[in-house]
Amino acid sequence: MRIVLDAMGGDYAPEVVVEGGVMAAREYGIEVVLVGPQEVVDAELAKHDTTGLSLPVVHASQVIEMTDEPSMSARKKKDSSMVVGMNLVKNGEADAFTTAGNSGGALAAALFRLGRIKGIKRPALSTVFPTQKGLCFICDVGANTDCRPVYLLQFGIMASAYAERVLGIPNPRVGIVSNGEEEGKGNILVKEAFRLLKKSDLNFIGNLEGKDIPAGLADVVVTDGFSGNIVIKLSEGVASLLMRVMEEEIKKSPMAVLGALLARSALREVKSRLDYSEYAGAPLLGVDGVVIVGHGRSNAKAIKNMVRVGKESVEKGMLEALKEGIAGSV
Amino acid sequence: MRIVLDAMGGDYAPEVVVEGGVMAAREYGIEVVLVGPQEVVDAELAKHDTTGLSLPVVHASQVIEMTDEPSMSARKKKDSSMVVGMNLVKNGEADAFTTAGNSGGALAAALFRLGRIKGIKRPALSTVFPTQKGLCFICDVGANTDCRPVYLLQFGIMASAYAERVLGIPNPRVGIVSNGEEEGKGNILVKEAFRLLKKSDLNFIGNLEGKDIPAGLADVVVTDGFSGNIVIKLSEGVASLLMRVMEEEIKKSPMAVLGALLARSALREVKSRLDYSEYAGAPLLGVDGVVIVGHGRSNAKAIKNMVRVGKESVEKGMLEALKEGIAGSV
Repeated sequence: MRIVLDAMGGDYAPEVVVEGGVMAAREYGIEVVLVGPQEVVDAELAKHDTTGLSLPVVHASQVIEMTDEPSMSARKKKDSSMVVGMNLVKNGEADAFTTAGNSGGALAAALFRLGRIKGIKRPALSTVFPTQKGLCFICDVGANTDCRPVYLLQFGIMASAYAERVLGIPNPRVGIVSNGEEEGKGNILVKEAFRLLKKSDLNFIGNLEGKDIPAGLADVVVTDGFSGNIVIKLSEGVASLLMRVMEEEIKKSPMAVLGALLARSALREVKSRLDYSEYAGAPLLGVDGVVIVGHGRSNAKAIKNMVRVGKESVEKGMLEALKEGIAGSV
Repeated sequence: MRIVLDAMGGDYAPEVVVEGGVMAAREYGIEVVLVGPQEVVDAELAKHDTTGLSLPVVHASQVIEMTDEPSMSARKKKDSSMVVGMNLVKNGEADAFTTAGNSGGALAAALFRLGRIKGIKRPALSTVFPTQKGLCFICDVGANTDCRPVYLLQFGIMASAYAERVLGIPNPRVGIVSNGEEEGKGNILVKEAFRLLKKSDLNFIGNLEGKDIPAGLADVVVTDGFSGNIVIKLSEGVASLLMRVMEEEIKKSPMAVLGALLARSALREVKSRLDYSEYAGAPLLGVDGVVIVGHGRSNAKAIKNMVRVGKESVEKGMLEALKEGIAGSV
């Protein structure tokens, strides 16, 4: 198994990314191909003991930055770590590409080098999201800010196939994010997508209000990339607000400080169950290759997990599942 | 001060609504006019000691249900509690109308009886939202699922005026919900609204990512009603997820249970700081009258707070502030 890691992608690249790559190579016993400027990556690798690990470096002189206009970035920077990395997948020299960089840039590079799966109108970004019942899978979380109803139908088909095959959820319940539970609620886009999803072969359970997502009502959450992006970033923000307010209130009383100490391991467990970095891999669904995009603020552990998601997506036949799902719907 | 309360609005109406109305009349020493079927409301009132309180009942035979199609509801149900209640405000017999019922129905009834403030294209629903720094004010949270850029500009103007005058926030910082912080991020609607807000006289601070809302980066959060509705309902859901996961983890260890007991008052304080029902009143901005819409699942305390928001909005001259704000922008 050979997974490409974009050494230059992410807010803490290359240092933290290379560290995460070393961790992944060690923990999963796989080859992690680091793509980036040779000297830069070599210098980072030298900080770690990589004895016995498989961590080849492939040189790429350019970087697609967070500030680059996504749609033009790949064509403008043909020697960027993203384009060079996608080429390795395209040419069969690697099984998957992973990056914590500009998600729009990753999409552009994937479209430029790998292209779309036949029949797919728009590839989408997805992510796993913690819920009361375990987890759900949200698609799109940022690739497509303006959508047509048929895109949302296809997001549902792809995400459902991924959830079933890679995440191991049988007959996943598919819901669509809306501003009310009742049929008939929604903006123009959602109302029309609702109609298409209802007619499809998916296990469609209807509209989801915001609160229904963390409650775990659906296994697959379909939404346009604008709303989906709000969902994941707002959830992070609310969780962090709660933790901070709790800290502030606890600090006000010595008794509460003692209490928090006694409950420490339980609180740590809460954090780990809801930790964003545990779920760091977001497959780019619909491009003709396994591409995983991680959170820009990924720490080394999140990078390691992103590589793991790439590995598992290959092992479990993500691409074949998507192709079958779309072929069955047309 | 005379505030109308829709006795039939809300998931737990009329019982819990009348209870909240009695609480409001007692706590604020104001007249709370209950609108609904006379016998039903009288029967509820009889359950309480209302000695010395001013709680007149105005009969209305119909109810706009949650399942009613909002836009037609008011015209179809002219003797509904919402239409009858709005009439009291229209005719100067009451200062404000409050309801925890169908928000789309309230909007329709307000438009039907009170009309819009001159210059306003679309009235909007707003709400106060807890943040790390205190609170922010979000508009729209559900009245307009499909918007044009100029609506969002007007939401900003109205919400900023309300925040300054009624909530007492000087020169409120106005942000727009988007899928990234950088200028240029957003869907087509947000990009164009960004341009309009930037040109306006508002204290516009630019795009807000989901996480920036609970972090308290802005005092006024502008968004279309579809996304805004997701923001408030998702936040509720994430907070409730966190609380449940915490409870589950604490129950697993006797030491943690003891810890939670010691930290009990701090945890109670966290809940109260983030409690949705403390912020139950959402002004309907842009209609020509003070109309406050509460959460459908409002308990008696939330109903009481909704009436309080109505009272304060009248006292602080909400309507005049909005009219001045819009007049200044045209």
